[in-house]
Amino acid sequence: MRARELGITLGLGVPGPLNAITDVPGVRVGHSTVRDEVNGKQVRTGVTLIQPRAGHARQQPCFAGCHVLNGNGDATGLEWIREAGLLATPIAITNTHSVGVVRDALVAQERDSLADPAVYWCMPVVMETYDGVLNDIWGQHVGPQHVAEAAANASAGPVAEGAVGGGTGMICHEFKGGIGTSSRQVPVGQGGYTVGALVQANHGKRRELRIDGYPVGRQLAPSPSPFEHQGTPGMGSIVVILATDAPLLPHQCQRLAQRASIGIARTGGGTEDSSGDIFLAFATGNQDLPPADYGRKDLPLSTPLAMLNNDYLSALFSAAAEAVEEAIVNALLAGEDMDSDDGRRVAGLTAELLLPALRASGWSSSQR
Amino acid sequence: MRARELGITLGLGVPGPLNAITDVPGVRVGHSTVRDEVNGKQVRTGVTLIQPRAGHARQQPCFAGCHVLNGNGDATGLEWIREAGLLATPIAITNTHSVGVVRDALVAQERDSLADPAVYWCMPVVMETYDGVLNDIWGQHVGPQHVAEAAANASAGPVAEGAVGGGTGMICHEFKGGIGTSSRQVPVGQGGYTVGALVQANHGKRRELRIDGYPVGRQLAPSPSPFEHQGTPGMGSIVVILATDAPLLPHQCQRLAQRASIGIARTGGGTEDSSGDIFLAFATGNQDLPPADYGRKDLPLSTPLAMLNNDYLSALFSAAAEAVEEAIVNALLAGEDMDSDDGRRVAGLTAELLLPALRASGWSSSQR
Amino acid sequence: MRARELGITLGLGVPGPLNAITDVPGVRVGHSTVRDEVNGKQVRTGVTLIQPRAGHARQQPCFAGCHVLNGNGDATGLEWIREAGLLATPIAITNTHSVGVVRDALVAQERDSLADPAVYWCMPVVMETYDGVLNDIWGQHVGPQHVAEAAANASAGPVAEGAVGGGTGMICHEFKGGIGTSSRQVPVGQGGYTVGALVQANHGKRRELRIDGYPVGRQLAPSPSPFEHQGTPGMGSIVVILATDAPLLPHQCQRLAQRASIGIARTGGGTEDSSGDIFLAFATGNQDLPPADYGRKDLPLSTPLAMLNNDYLSALFSAAAEAVEEAIVNALLAGEDMDSDDGRRVAGLTAELLLPALRASGWSSSQR
Amino acid sequence: MRARELGITLGLGVPGPLNAITDVPGVRVGHSTVRDEVNGKQVRTGVTLIQPRAGHARQQPCFAGCHVLNGNGDATGLEWIREAGLLATPIAITNTHSVGVVRDALVAQERDSLADPAVYWCMPVVMETYDGVLNDIWGQHVGPQHVAEAAANASAGPVAEGAVGGGTGMICHEFKGGIGTSSRQVPVGQGGYTVGALVQANHGKRRELRIDGYPVGRQLAPSPSPFEHQGTPGMGSIVVILATDAPLLPHQCQRLAQRASIGIARTGGGTEDSSGDIFLAFATGNQDLPPADYGRKDLPLSTPLAMLNNDYLSALFSAAAEAVEEAIVNALLAGEDMDSDDGRRVAGLTAELLLPALRASGWSSSQR
Repeated sequence: MRARELGITLGLGVPGPLNAITDVPGVRVGHSTVRDEVNGKQVRTGVTLIQPRAGHARQQPCFAGCHVLNGNGDATGLEWIREAGLLATPIAITNTHSVGVVRDALVAQERDSLADPAVYWCMPVVMETYDGVLNDIWGQHVGPQHVAEAAANASAGPVAEGAVGGGTGMICHEFKGGIGTSSRQVPVGQGGYTVGALVQANHGKRRELRIDGYPVGRQLAPSPSPFEHQGTPGMGSIVVILATDAPLLPHQCQRLAQRASIGIARTGGGTEDSSGDIFLAFATGNQDLPPADYGRKDLPLSTPLAMLNNDYLSALFSAAAEAVEEAIVNALLAGEDMDSDDGRRVAGLTAELLLPALRASGWSSSQR
Repeated sequence: MRARELGITLGLGVPGPLNAITDVPGVRVGHSTVRDEVNGKQVRTGVTLIQPRAGHARQQPCFAGCHVLNGNGDATGLEWIREAGLLATPIAITNTHSVGVVRDALVAQERDSLADPAVYWCMPVVMETYDGVLNDIWGQHVGPQHVAEAAANASAGPVAEGAVGGGTGMICHEFKGGIGTSSRQVPVGQGGYTVGALVQANHGKRRELRIDGYPVGRQLAPSPSPFEHQGTPGMGSIVVILATDAPLLPHQCQRLAQRASIGIARTGGGTEDSSGDIFLAFATGNQDLPPADYGRKDLPLSTPLAMLNNDYLSALFSAAAEAVEEAIVNALLAGEDMDSDDGRRVAGLTAELLLPALRASGWSSSQR
Repeated sequence: MRARELGITLGLGVPGPLNAITDVPGVRVGHSTVRDEVNGKQVRTGVTLIQPRAGHARQQPCFAGCHVLNGNGDATGLEWIREAGLLATPIAITNTHSVGVVRDALVAQERDSLADPAVYWCMPVVMETYDGVLNDIWGQHVGPQHVAEAAANASAGPVAEGAVGGGTGMICHEFKGGIGTSSRQVPVGQGGYTVGALVQANHGKRRELRIDGYPVGRQLAPSPSPFEHQGTPGMGSIVVILATDAPLLPHQCQRLAQRASIGIARTGGGTEDSSGDIFLAFATGNQDLPPADYGRKDLPLSTPLAMLNNDYLSALFSAAAEAVEEAIVNALLAGEDMDSDDGRRVAGLTAELLLPALRASGWSSSQR
Repeated sequence: MRARELGITLGLGVPGPLNAITDVPGVRVGHSTVRDEVNGKQVRTGVTLIQPRAGHARQQPCFAGCHVLNGNGDATGLEWIREAGLLATPIAITNTHSVGVVRDALVAQERDSLADPAVYWCMPVVMETYDGVLNDIWGQHVGPQHVAEAAANASAGPVAEGAVGGGTGMICHEFKGGIGTSSRQVPVGQGGYTVGALVQANHGKRRELRIDGYPVGRQLAPSPSPFEHQGTPGMGSIVVILATDAPLLPHQCQRLAQRASIGIARTGGGTEDSSGDIFLAFATGNQDLPPADYGRKDLPLSTPLAMLNNDYLSALFSAAAEAVEEAIVNALLAGEDMDSDDGRRVAGLTAELLLPALRASGWSSSQR
């Protein structure tokens, strides 16, 4: 069940047809979910891949920007995005200890696509959150084959949520978390653009959970926390990918990325030292940026672009905040119970758990 | 009326005795409110001064850090805080077009206190929001005398809120805004520190207002917006000052400053291009940092310090988010109707307006 | 005498016709020099104004970006440049303690030009260096009339250097410093753009001075330093303004701004804690950016732009580094002896002092 | 031959006994050099490992900070350094396309050292430059065994330079480049600290090379460039690691890191779009920072520290600039001819090539 299927509408904006990041034209998402038992240890992890454009990312880069709410996380490929605002690879999300293998596998994929002797170095964007409670993270069970599988699965259709892909072993607000997605369409008078969000949600405390603002976490019946005997409630991270078809420049993508903080805050997150909260936003509204190669003799001096005028950014900022808010809730609602090897239960946030508490906090589906 | 006097408690933490930034030992606040009519134009502006320590700021600097959620604002004195993490002057907040006069007046105050021929350059921190709807901002009616008055008024006691000091002509969520303050005491097991917030709130849309998360803005009766005929709802800015007595290093102050975003988001802000949202956090927990002079022959090589261990930061982050949230609501509740020269009414958010809408959104004072 | 008149060519690139920032079409520079004696104290200060475009800055903003090599300085107006990359005012440079009055005077100038009731807040860019050795800096002798005078003097022609405008009382590498300028034209195959630099040079140690790389500072005869009895050699700051007519986006301006560090390093600077080294770059290659007002009903959704392709940036980076290098040397060579009130002599770097030392370091004018 | 063995002294400071980064007590460096032929393609690459402390990095973290002069490069592990200023792993440097495998191998090494069930996520710092001209970089020939070998080779003694470890296939100023190192001891009156630099130098144009400032590149006989038929002269990158035993706080490490720009600029670099110039500085002067684990019940509230007072930073800044300058020259002088598979010769910068050109530029070893 997704939030809207339960009658929970978040914010004031209108989702796209799929209510997913794939509502942004050209964006594809693929998962590879790894569930196994190795040497008596449970493996619950995977890779999620986001392809930003219909075309090949190196041949058709996008503008992009990032923001770090809390840098207790790792990432590759962000330096060139910070410097030049160019995204020329897919984006992958996995667990903390498999960032390297995923990155190098994406490099190898790029090699296989090289048709010409252009000078090019490949610096893929890989992000992560920590699934060490539910997954044998030190075992590093993700391999290049999972990256290939995620790429093969990439689709512009609906996006599976919850314990899939990189989100397989994640915990959110002390419930089962993982992948979630949502989208918003800004009004036609504001350009009619789409903003999509995909989160790998692995952050937050139960008691601080808010849904559409309602402080439902205070009403949820106390129950054992997966962090009761080890770690700290709220430990974890959230990675956010924002996509839009608006013609944003790199610095405007960076501004959009910071608005993921707003959506996280509205659901009760954003206050943990131990959370790696790193956000990437890309914009496909400008086409035909030059390929990410060096020393091309035929490179023109300049590229024609459009820039969304700043007055119209507020609608995108609101859309991004709401899409992130709803993507987190969707990640929670897609969760099913999962137990750790050492017997810690991570409960899925079912409608049965959530709705009574939500009503106790004053919420009703007819309120709006 | 402050939020708690109306039975509105925000968040889960415990305020300090004054529920104000002045709960942090040594912090003093002074206002100078300028209300006048000049050449037929209404003057509604002022200066608010925050003195970070009991001692002289130049002789007893603090560690500090800043964060910019949206840089559509101006400030002086932030470069050295970004570089060296040192705050060696009071902090002043005023209107956008009077930043300069306030800054230079603070320099002149420092001159008068110079007892020795030390080499020193004075770069005071001055921040601002835009009061051009209710105040003749182009008239630049703030003078050095108002800075002196704010300094003379500085007190470690309760802090006047609403249309006082720099907040006199401000508008928040389309209601009358201005100065607000609040504080939190973190649990003794987390160090027992105090975090205080002071905001000059001049941001936000009515419809997006949330109180303790409750989306009350959707329930407020529609009424004319002060931005109906000119400008854009949400236009404006919010400045946040955070203070703590915890022993934070400069980069930890910077991290704390970013959590002001969380409090703003929880009350429905943070998504406007036209808002200048700049935050400064300072920490008084380390004493006896060297004076802000250059070329002292007697300067020791190093200064002994303490650093709060990062695991304990989460409690401060939560405290900062809640204190900002409550400071914004206090700024709103302190508001009284004010009309502009061109006949726009900016309504104060009275209990009569707020409480029915809050209840309609599901809130009740006994819910907690 | 400028460097090239002495046979000193710096770097490998070709200057523009004026070898000044005003080689960038539309850029104008005006000085107001304040030399006076007040209450028995010597006043040696002023204001230098840079107008980025032929048109009105608010009606015709430029893209801009900044970099901070060392934030021991103050500035106004940089937050919006960091956030939105827009420069909508002239740039002023003055002494540290007069930043405020210059800023507010620029606001007042803007008021006088307002023809319509647009919603607009004015946040001018003002930068500074410290002239407290040669000028009664605590006396704050700059007034609005000097800002007006600098504006009245603004010209697209040759730029006076040395002890003029904001540079009047400055010290560079322990010699008389101040304003310097230079420019480079990148080869036609790289776009044929112009890059101009203007510095207010108030930094550096004598012994570390390098000219075209030659470590001439080691060969200069020892002589009393203006910092012998007070302060620290190298104390001070350098402000750099870079202009280009290339179509750079905001983040590319920021990248260009960082290359000022390269030019400063080549002349022996960049290693002082007590130096405020702040750089601003603007690019006029994109025309017709929307005016800096808010809430315009007729604002189109987007603005067509061009972006210089990144491969062509290297030529601009080299040009910026060389123009800054030569601007610093020009600032030095324009210097004449100036004495402080307390009898410290700041020597001008004459050809008679420089050339023998330069030759002793191995340099010759025919070497190239 | 190193620079000083040829009579080339750079700058004004005094090197440590080894003139290497290992002059900083506790710092160890190990190389693994990979030279092979696979499928008819030449493999010239490797890994260089820097261990920051005598103890285990996770048990004994250091303060650290980074700076990006040009983000056309990739890195892992920098987000937590930016956020918390903590370095809790070794630092590895390799080629661009092997960053992932090295990172994950370091994670695996950490796993093997875990003695307790502490909650910990491992985010090692791995940096890179591009060796695709001389090495089959798309073949990804670095494996975990090379990381192990580099660790086994780690030593506190002299550091091999040139075509070793990560530097094996690198090109610098169009000559053979690679690893270089140097150090400086600041005067006792400034604290007597050591600053060491290690570079992986793969950047710069021949014509722009400067040695101790002398523009020797202009005097070097023209000869075929390795980039003549493909790529762009100056293409590549430089990675810099700075170490010091001074008690710097994280933000001071970040400031130190930026001074690598100064050393690079003095040798003629810093102006290429296609260069990834990323710098990391760490400081071992503060001992007994808490281990990098989460949720420890016995964690004290705070840690006692010392902070170097800012006035003493200038000496460290100068030392860092000089050590980087000399490390680059040492990397060049350690180079020997290496040919690419497609017949491009990358010449080593021999004394025979360099000294006549250096003399022609006016330099003499007795000049000082």
